[in-house]
Amino acid sequence: MKIGILGYGNLGKGVECAVKNNPDTELACVFTRRNPSAVKVLTPGVPVYDAKDILDHKDEIDVLVLCSGSATDLPKQTPEYAKYFNVIDSFDTHARIPEHFANVDKAAKNSKHIALISCGWDPGIFSLLRIYGNCILPDGQDYTFWGPGVSQGHSDAIRRIKGVKDARQYTIPVQSALDAVRAGKNPELTTRQKHTRECWVVAEDGATKEDLDRIEKEIKEMPNYFAGYDTTVHFVSEEELKKNHAGIPHGGFVFRSGKTGWNKEFNNVIEYSLNLDSNPAFTASVLVSFARAIFRMNKEGQTGCRTVFDVAPAYLSPLSGEEIRAHLL
Amino acid sequence: MKIGILGYGNLGKGVECAVKNNPDTELACVFTRRNPSAVKVLTPGVPVYDAKDILDHKDEIDVLVLCSGSATDLPKQTPEYAKYFNVIDSFDTHARIPEHFANVDKAAKNSKHIALISCGWDPGIFSLLRIYGNCILPDGQDYTFWGPGVSQGHSDAIRRIKGVKDARQYTIPVQSALDAVRAGKNPELTTRQKHTRECWVVAEDGATKEDLDRIEKEIKEMPNYFAGYDTTVHFVSEEELKKNHAGIPHGGFVFRSGKTGWNKEFNNVIEYSLNLDSNPAFTASVLVSFARAIFRMNKEGQTGCRTVFDVAPAYLSPLSGEEIRAHLL
Repeated sequence: MKIGILGYGNLGKGVECAVKNNPDTELACVFTRRNPSAVKVLTPGVPVYDAKDILDHKDEIDVLVLCSGSATDLPKQTPEYAKYFNVIDSFDTHARIPEHFANVDKAAKNSKHIALISCGWDPGIFSLLRIYGNCILPDGQDYTFWGPGVSQGHSDAIRRIKGVKDARQYTIPVQSALDAVRAGKNPELTTRQKHTRECWVVAEDGATKEDLDRIEKEIKEMPNYFAGYDTTVHFVSEEELKKNHAGIPHGGFVFRSGKTGWNKEFNNVIEYSLNLDSNPAFTASVLVSFARAIFRMNKEGQTGCRTVFDVAPAYLSPLSGEEIRAHLL
Repeated sequence: MKIGILGYGNLGKGVECAVKNNPDTELACVFTRRNPSAVKVLTPGVPVYDAKDILDHKDEIDVLVLCSGSATDLPKQTPEYAKYFNVIDSFDTHARIPEHFANVDKAAKNSKHIALISCGWDPGIFSLLRIYGNCILPDGQDYTFWGPGVSQGHSDAIRRIKGVKDARQYTIPVQSALDAVRAGKNPELTTRQKHTRECWVVAEDGATKEDLDRIEKEIKEMPNYFAGYDTTVHFVSEEELKKNHAGIPHGGFVFRSGKTGWNKEFNNVIEYSLNLDSNPAFTASVLVSFARAIFRMNKEGQTGCRTVFDVAPAYLSPLSGEEIRAHLL
């Protein structure tokens, strides 16, 4: 299976690595909106092309993996490229999924291609855990916790504050909230009650005590991002940030807690968790396994837009039906 | 969707309860090989029929849930009833799955029905976690732990020892083994190194110290079941066993631990666990959600044998595609 990558940032690089780790896949080419000659990929011999020439390479690719941002790029790119390619994206702007799905579905059906949107770990694998949990325990409650891990959006928000040179924000689940859910106590919890926020901040050179106090206050009072959360701010040097906070780890938990029995007398707790050294590398691994799935589904004649809910797990595996029944059932 | 139950033991009762908890399903009837007039079901108005008259009720049932044992019943029943019904079973004799699959597939294809075998939590939900884990992290290791929970087979094995009146055996995961896997240490572990066995035994009245010593020795040395395990034996009164060990709780853990990154420099640990007050009630809930799925797949024209790997998660849910994308993605 020949994979094309559009967008060579952290996620694009992750897809390249995932292709290397999946022997039945091969990287055909990478497309960038930067100057292609300035982009060096890791895989020997793989060409980098200008994104505007992408249609010249239509026949070299089985599935195009879109590695751009959800805010402005993917709403345009996924429906556009579904006209010419089987495509997969990690669109994660929840409120806009119905509209995005409809646009992509229309384009992919017209062109007889297949598309899979909102793939990764959340949305993606966590969504799968939610649907299985809801269907098995219809009378129950869902809990999703994120972290411990680096939130890119929150780190960016801190960097936009005047006087901040660099920053890294960790989202951390509250242990007592995890314990209560795990014990089947079905607590009512807001996102703020489930998570704390820890910030590592590099101030501009020459910052005074007053500057630092103002930065800390601005972080802690920032609406939507930090206000109402238990937030800790640590000021560190640029060297310390680079040394101790260079990685992009992430993870989280999905719980389904529910009742069975004639009088709902039995408690059940389902817990799923991810502990990931690299968020983009894992997301990319999920994308490549679902790329395999949709390529097969398209070969069977399926077209239009799909989500992870529409993919039978057997399609994800390079093994045959006999093999997966023998080794994994 | 009209459900029929064949076999009204713990699992059959569990299916009845799961039907009650799924408003889009309804219990049509129960079939038993016992005297039907001696079997009292919980659902008002639901008839109990003799299993030998099952074909008289062919048109009253959308999916027949087979709640018999894997050892001798299901290998005959599932292919036989797939001639007349959409069927689902929880066949769990791993080595015989290929043969069972082939027999059921042939019968179901000929009759244009659909069948799902080996459904429950292991095989079943745990199998799903294994396939997702293997496909997302192709370079990694699988770990399955069972318990803490009651093992019916091991409890029965103790009851067959001379001088034992009743017994209950708990399988318990070894905490240090769980911790090592969770920490990404990828230990090599046998089933014996992953689990301990705790036995609660009621001796026949008038048992001497010598009898108890012999029973304990026979348990601990029993090949396959206990030999090589860290096994603890507690003698208790019949009342204590009834009071403290009447339930059938179970559960377990599935881990996938694997590497991502260009040089496999990133560790990832995926953990899934179940903590179930009632093993048969949960297994039955899984069966009913997959019964919904195969009924829909059959209405779309699909026939033959399936496993959980072949079912797209969306089929399990009573909600529409729009609803699941809005609420669970």
